[in-house]
Amino acid sequence: MRQTREFANPPVVLGYATIAGPKEGEGPLATYFDKIINNLYYYEDTWEKAEQKMFLEVVEMALQKASVKKEEVDFFLAGDLLNQIISANFVAKSLGIPFFGLYNACATFYEGLILGAMLIAGGFAKKVLVGVSSHYATVERQYRNPTEQGVQKTPTSQWTVTGAAAVVLGEGEGKIKIPRVTVGKALDYGMFDPSDMGGAMAPAAFDTLLAHFKETGLSYDYYDLMATGDLARFGWQILVKLLQERNINFGQRLTDCGIMIYRPDQQVNAGGSGTACSALVTAGYVFNELSQGKIHKFLGIGTGALLSQVTSQQGMSIPVIAHAVSFECY
Amino acid sequence: MRQTREFANPPVVLGYATIAGPKEGEGPLATYFDKIINNLYYYEDTWEKAEQKMFLEVVEMALQKASVKKEEVDFFLAGDLLNQIISANFVAKSLGIPFFGLYNACATFYEGLILGAMLIAGGFAKKVLVGVSSHYATVERQYRNPTEQGVQKTPTSQWTVTGAAAVVLGEGEGKIKIPRVTVGKALDYGMFDPSDMGGAMAPAAFDTLLAHFKETGLSYDYYDLMATGDLARFGWQILVKLLQERNINFGQRLTDCGIMIYRPDQQVNAGGSGTACSALVTAGYVFNELSQGKIHKFLGIGTGALLSQVTSQQGMSIPVIAHAVSFECY
Repeated sequence: MRQTREFANPPVVLGYATIAGPKEGEGPLATYFDKIINNLYYYEDTWEKAEQKMFLEVVEMALQKASVKKEEVDFFLAGDLLNQIISANFVAKSLGIPFFGLYNACATFYEGLILGAMLIAGGFAKKVLVGVSSHYATVERQYRNPTEQGVQKTPTSQWTVTGAAAVVLGEGEGKIKIPRVTVGKALDYGMFDPSDMGGAMAPAAFDTLLAHFKETGLSYDYYDLMATGDLARFGWQILVKLLQERNINFGQRLTDCGIMIYRPDQQVNAGGSGTACSALVTAGYVFNELSQGKIHKFLGIGTGALLSQVTSQQGMSIPVIAHAVSFECY
Repeated sequence: MRQTREFANPPVVLGYATIAGPKEGEGPLATYFDKIINNLYYYEDTWEKAEQKMFLEVVEMALQKASVKKEEVDFFLAGDLLNQIISANFVAKSLGIPFFGLYNACATFYEGLILGAMLIAGGFAKKVLVGVSSHYATVERQYRNPTEQGVQKTPTSQWTVTGAAAVVLGEGEGKIKIPRVTVGKALDYGMFDPSDMGGAMAPAAFDTLLAHFKETGLSYDYYDLMATGDLARFGWQILVKLLQERNINFGQRLTDCGIMIYRPDQQVNAGGSGTACSALVTAGYVFNELSQGKIHKFLGIGTGALLSQVTSQQGMSIPVIAHAVSFECY
């Protein structure tokens, strides 16, 4: 089964927006975000409501920047990390756009971009809205421990990015195009440590990267920049090592959104994670670089760990996935 | 924004399978299921593992019945009701088919059928596998109370269907075709009672039904049979009343999977619910009736309540959605 699809008429990015949290707003990519919120509560009484507010706001910003009215949008493809993807659900009901809820963990943004691009290229939509969010505090208390407890973290653990991003995809003219995508398989390498998700996900990124280059026949130096979603420092090193074993060396052209989004001294252990991690870096930094002509060809590889607390507690391993989307702008 | 899409070359059903739980196996549709398991543990040590086992098995049955090898399947579209859709994730990693994880609560089966049909009709897939599951005990302890507690239920509450269903969609020839679909919007009618999800979802089914007939121009007597996903007795009565207010009377031609799947004396309160509810009735009973020529035109309206425990605890209302798919066989 071929995982890659190339579009004869590539869907284009009509508009995009990003909102980042306080810690992300102190990181090296701060200037690339449309808005930075200075408090995790964002004037709401719960973190969950803050996440929904940020998500709805970023969607409205993306529509405005694209000069697209929500009535013109055919489908809203969205997800997040909370149980029952409630952030996406509540944004969807505020928008009233026909809605497909998605969940591929931290790869959900890339899952949405792939499905959105296919719906447009297949002739079923003229405009599609893709949106995701994640929030440090909502994720922390859902997946790990009560935040008040201040539990120590292992060096391989990652910091969930607070933020939301939205992209309006369309047909026809647009600066940034999506010429091809590679859909990931769910894989399982027998990893069991939910505090080392970067390590668990690295082989999925490796598998999807190899499939992408093999199926497209592109040379390994085709892309100006490639970034995995949230492998962070340790996971990314494993990926680099796996590639070296195949004599593939991307050098500086391969990086990771979870490494890029924070400075090493921001006390984030291995680096960033979360659905918003790849989304903020892609729709913030990368789209800006593409638009300004600093790079022309980018491959993003959204990575996701498909576990839950229950599967970990029941002694099961961590399935992983990685979806790749290329963005090009000339 | 038009919610309905009609396919010039309708995708077809190549194969399908259903596995039902013990209670469903004692219900009026028992003879339509491919397999009935007689214990909620299904020879596993946890209910969650039982759900995954049933889900993987039904997928393999559907592939076999369709005479399709898993290597021939382009995409696996799947979801379930557990946090992080772990049942779907673990089946996906066992299959190794490029995977899109979905979540629209109990409407996930219909969400998957719509996206699968579009991926085929759009030329991005020749064969797509759609699968869902739900399990009384895994859902009960995740969303409600420890099962050991035996908490009393209100009359409007519903019984989560234990079961799994899978459908192989393809292009070209096939008896059952999917000529058109209507994508639902997430709506919110200010309902707050998580023990009355049928009542919450009824207006979403109403909205999607009206959109379907308005946009297609089909007459109200076009379909031989129509069934909502899991409104159950009270929700379905509300839907009938909403339709009557518009002078629409479908009579016997409109029913509900949550009413059909159990006998009234099975102590299920208002009726069935869960992702497997509409999936078992559609891929079990309805596909059989279509194949045997007892009916020719069916419209299924998968219904979903997009809440979570957290949103209920934080005093938020229940967003709802309904997706419609028509199946025709001559």
